[in-house]
Amino acid sequence: MNFDLLLILDLLGVFFFAVSGCLLATRKGFDLVGSLLLGSMVGLGGGVIRDIVLNAGPPAAFTNQIYLLPPAAAAALVYFTVKNVQRSGRLLFMFDAGGLALFCVTGTLKALEAGMNPVASILLGVTTAVGGGILRDVTANDVPKVFDPKDLYAIPAFIGAGLATGLWHLGWLTFTTGAMATVVVFALRMLSLRYGWHAPLAARSWTPRRGQRG
Amino acid sequence: MNFDLLLILDLLGVFFFAVSGCLLATRKGFDLVGSLLLGSMVGLGGGVIRDIVLNAGPPAAFTNQIYLLPPAAAAALVYFTVKNVQRSGRLLFMFDAGGLALFCVTGTLKALEAGMNPVASILLGVTTAVGGGILRDVTANDVPKVFDPKDLYAIPAFIGAGLATGLWHLGWLTFTTGAMATVVVFALRMLSLRYGWHAPLAARSWTPRRGQRG
Amino acid sequence: MNFDLLLILDLLGVFFFAVSGCLLATRKGFDLVGSLLLGSMVGLGGGVIRDIVLNAGPPAAFTNQIYLLPPAAAAALVYFTVKNVQRSGRLLFMFDAGGLALFCVTGTLKALEAGMNPVASILLGVTTAVGGGILRDVTANDVPKVFDPKDLYAIPAFIGAGLATGLWHLGWLTFTTGAMATVVVFALRMLSLRYGWHAPLAARSWTPRRGQRG
Repeated sequence: MNFDLLLILDLLGVFFFAVSGCLLATRKGFDLVGSLLLGSMVGLGGGVIRDIVLNAGPPAAFTNQIYLLPPAAAAALVYFTVKNVQRSGRLLFMFDAGGLALFCVTGTLKALEAGMNPVASILLGVTTAVGGGILRDVTANDVPKVFDPKDLYAIPAFIGAGLATGLWHLGWLTFTTGAMATVVVFALRMLSLRYGWHAPLAARSWTPRRGQRG
Repeated sequence: MNFDLLLILDLLGVFFFAVSGCLLATRKGFDLVGSLLLGSMVGLGGGVIRDIVLNAGPPAAFTNQIYLLPPAAAAALVYFTVKNVQRSGRLLFMFDAGGLALFCVTGTLKALEAGMNPVASILLGVTTAVGGGILRDVTANDVPKVFDPKDLYAIPAFIGAGLATGLWHLGWLTFTTGAMATVVVFALRMLSLRYGWHAPLAARSWTPRRGQRG
Repeated sequence: MNFDLLLILDLLGVFFFAVSGCLLATRKGFDLVGSLLLGSMVGLGGGVIRDIVLNAGPPAAFTNQIYLLPPAAAAALVYFTVKNVQRSGRLLFMFDAGGLALFCVTGTLKALEAGMNPVASILLGVTTAVGGGILRDVTANDVPKVFDPKDLYAIPAFIGAGLATGLWHLGWLTFTTGAMATVVVFALRMLSLRYGWHAPLAARSWTPRRGQRG
């Protein structure tokens, strides 16, 4: 996969996460500027953390102005199209899943390209994928989605990062196979939401009472 | 504007934001050490993020000990002078506005001096200006001021960063013009608080019910 | 103290903080993956911030895979052994204190080894020590322990960082003296919890009403 295709997938991931941020901004009653800022934080935050960890010059989000387009487009799209804020929750989950799927693949590939070893690349890919969403939810005073025990979030991201690493090392990475890995992650995430697939709780012998959390 | 004058404005910005952090610490019932730490986080956090993004050696706040003075002075000032914690909210807004005004200018100039392009410098200036306040409010479990839809916060910061960039490129930057840009930002922020100037909501067709937020 | 002994103390600190993160995950009803992620964030977060500030290549947590063992061990330990989640609060405080004690010493020594001056090293040591806990509590929507006015948290960390710097400069640093500094910090923190030692409030003339906070 050449660099331009990776950039396209990355920008698409920024856009998806930015939409999730702008949707949350509408639900919280933020204004258009707050929507743009939260969208930018969510869309660009994971990648900025990744680039800071890679420690190879200023993050792309600050040096390459094309990264500013997806958050601006997301804020405009949400501003003009969202009619029913209360019902936008489902959309938020879908766009968040799209961002997760794209970033666990592109984040891993960027780390591999920067010369990190496979394990570090998988970790950085997952960090890129979950980082923006954690910033979004913490800023808006919610518990991050990645910690919701009722569905799968980090596991699909780890699978996507693992697939990307495998494809890269086997020399099978093309735009098509990269996009397929993304689709797998997206499907796993959405199916876990639909059918309530979940991991075991953090303590084996503890059964939470109904509805109890936090 | 020579480097020393920029340093003075920057230290003043640290002091203003640090006072806002210490005032919030008193409202939340933190102790003096917590006040010093929250003041340091708010005063130094935005600049540390900026320096990390610039990726040019350890952040100034850690290497230049003079940056420790403003937070210490802020914690002491708040400790000895604040009588009525409940009424300190207005003061907090004022000091926060002062920090915002100073940092959007100094942050932008530091980025320009480090060789960033104008757009990246404006983004970094705004990040410096809003970063410390976001850290403050998220740490204290409040929704960050920058997302409050009832007044303007990021827009004055963008204007200040734009003015600083313009002055720099036109060769008109002196201590006086830099300070004037700061005053413009401060005035815009305070006037928006006073007269309720605000941006449109994040979704055009949504009208929040009275008092509804989050 | 040679590098391997410092690594061992550092890994032990990661483990202690990771256990505190996993215990909080059980209390919040997170699942096993969320426990692993929160444990990793808490255990590795402070050190990642320190390494990013030192700006000397990618953080050790991403490049040295041995750092992944303590969070994995912590999540497994908590999963298999915690029976009564409601009563695990005391354990959480103990492991958090252990992490604090180890990290204020190892964080300071890592900064000194990287060539930072004594004051910057103490600041970075304290940042390492309190950083992971702040990430933990903010992510889980709690006010960070470091801001709790009912006991001492940052002061023991400053003492430990100061002791480590002193031992280093006097040439008295060995595994034994380093471990002793750690024990001093741990003891101060636990005694302050037991006997309610605390610092003065952030504003001298303010007496909070009983139970009032935030």
